[in-house]
Amino acid sequence: MHFADALLAAIAQKQAPICVGLDPNIEKIPHCVRSAFDNDELGQAEAVGQFFSEIIDAVADLVPAVKPQLAFFEALGPSGMAIYQRVCAYAASQGLLVIADGKRNDIGSTAAAYAVAHLSEEAFPADAITVTPYLGSDGIKPFIKNCVEFDRGMFILVKTSNPSSGEFQDLKLASGETLYERVAVSVAEWGEVAIGKSGFSAVGAVVGATYPEQAAVLRKLMPHQIFLVPGYGAQGATAADVRPCFTEDGRGAIVNSSRGIIYAYETDSQYSEEQFAAAARAAVIRMKDDLNSVL
Amino acid sequence: MHFADALLAAIAQKQAPICVGLDPNIEKIPHCVRSAFDNDELGQAEAVGQFFSEIIDAVADLVPAVKPQLAFFEALGPSGMAIYQRVCAYAASQGLLVIADGKRNDIGSTAAAYAVAHLSEEAFPADAITVTPYLGSDGIKPFIKNCVEFDRGMFILVKTSNPSSGEFQDLKLASGETLYERVAVSVAEWGEVAIGKSGFSAVGAVVGATYPEQAAVLRKLMPHQIFLVPGYGAQGATAADVRPCFTEDGRGAIVNSSRGIIYAYETDSQYSEEQFAAAARAAVIRMKDDLNSVL
Repeated sequence: MHFADALLAAIAQKQAPICVGLDPNIEKIPHCVRSAFDNDELGQAEAVGQFFSEIIDAVADLVPAVKPQLAFFEALGPSGMAIYQRVCAYAASQGLLVIADGKRNDIGSTAAAYAVAHLSEEAFPADAITVTPYLGSDGIKPFIKNCVEFDRGMFILVKTSNPSSGEFQDLKLASGETLYERVAVSVAEWGEVAIGKSGFSAVGAVVGATYPEQAAVLRKLMPHQIFLVPGYGAQGATAADVRPCFTEDGRGAIVNSSRGIIYAYETDSQYSEEQFAAAARAAVIRMKDDLNSVL
Repeated sequence: MHFADALLAAIAQKQAPICVGLDPNIEKIPHCVRSAFDNDELGQAEAVGQFFSEIIDAVADLVPAVKPQLAFFEALGPSGMAIYQRVCAYAASQGLLVIADGKRNDIGSTAAAYAVAHLSEEAFPADAITVTPYLGSDGIKPFIKNCVEFDRGMFILVKTSNPSSGEFQDLKLASGETLYERVAVSVAEWGEVAIGKSGFSAVGAVVGATYPEQAAVLRKLMPHQIFLVPGYGAQGATAADVRPCFTEDGRGAIVNSSRGIIYAYETDSQYSEEQFAAAARAAVIRMKDDLNSVL
């Protein structure tokens, strides 16, 4: 099934435009999980695998997608990458779409290797990947090719959620646009070859929740793009802030929360460390209610 | 030893500002190597490891550095990442500096995870990594922190070698600069905290050999940056094209060639497939003579 159609159908079915970010910061994995494994690279990777399998079990019926962050798995070495593959496969087996957060990019032949790595049945299969646009279309089109051939998706960084995102992205061009607006126009063009029955493209955009005014502009420039929206929760954005990322009828975006869900046990005094999965489930339900209050 | 000082000393000692790119495209690994291993993921990864150990043996006395391309290793799955780690370690054991070509980037806490992954003694230790600037300083500073703490280096994409690099990088800003010039100014500023005894910073820049006019401008904007220069050989740039990447006295740049060296056996009729390592060595010697003719 076309990636955008599948994602939007799952969002509608679960009434939750929510992506759970899987960022395995080993320091934050509960001791009750870590203590069952050795404290070497392999043991840490296995603790991460166990932690996420319990998180996935706790949220799979509530959300359409998870977004594992490759950086944290890479930081655990080859064992981490093996666990990454296993976590993706387990999430898929539980009916979740998997968005690999890798922010990959390179020149044509190398971008094609990344597409094989993440958007095929080989290597590290995921349903979609995040991609950086700095190299222009050469670095984008090999990913689009795999999106079309294998019903996968991609989210191109347009306006990111971090404090310094404006240093380059907000630069005013001689044409009067900002750089992020110019990138958005390209993303809309690139995505035309991959529009599904839903009217949305398999080529989506990353638009940070922390910049709601820019999101409103970008929603108009990219009418066929699904927005993957980081920045809600731990990074400070509210439901009102993410509202402009959605279309007027409340579709076309999926909001990510990572630390605010998976490490909810740290801040929610109702739950002990051992109840980390229940705390994550409760955080998802709160986030769902919060988002649905503005949609 | 400070990364820039170590790299420049190795270039001077070997009289070769050359980086050998290790791009393990499994289709191009000689059959005589591949046939010794199974044709599954593990076997392919082991063939890659064998191929590169012979390439490294053939060029280690001639060049200062190798640049493994992470995309191609990732395309071989967890086994590929294990071999990647082994190839990096073997290159280091043979006295080569290792530049991880990953074009990584993300927001602060995640960029820090990538820095642990690639610029520490854990996970996938390399001497330097390539980084994309689109997210601004948040995505850059965690890498710089590790450069300073652990004597590592980084090369930030400024002007890339691919045909579409101008789509965003060449955009004219309202200020009159181009985007790549604006990025160059930031790279020069970011690099100030990491300047070595050589006068060069551990924070370098990627500047494609295929755009010599832009390189001349960038050389002036980034006087303390070592340029990592892709685009020579298979991508079409000549020695004359790379000259502007160097300072007037012929320092401050390292030119990469990947396919033109490691797969030289395919185009050099003097060598059989079995002699791929000798063909690679001959290609390095030709490249060295070619570059030194303009320096």
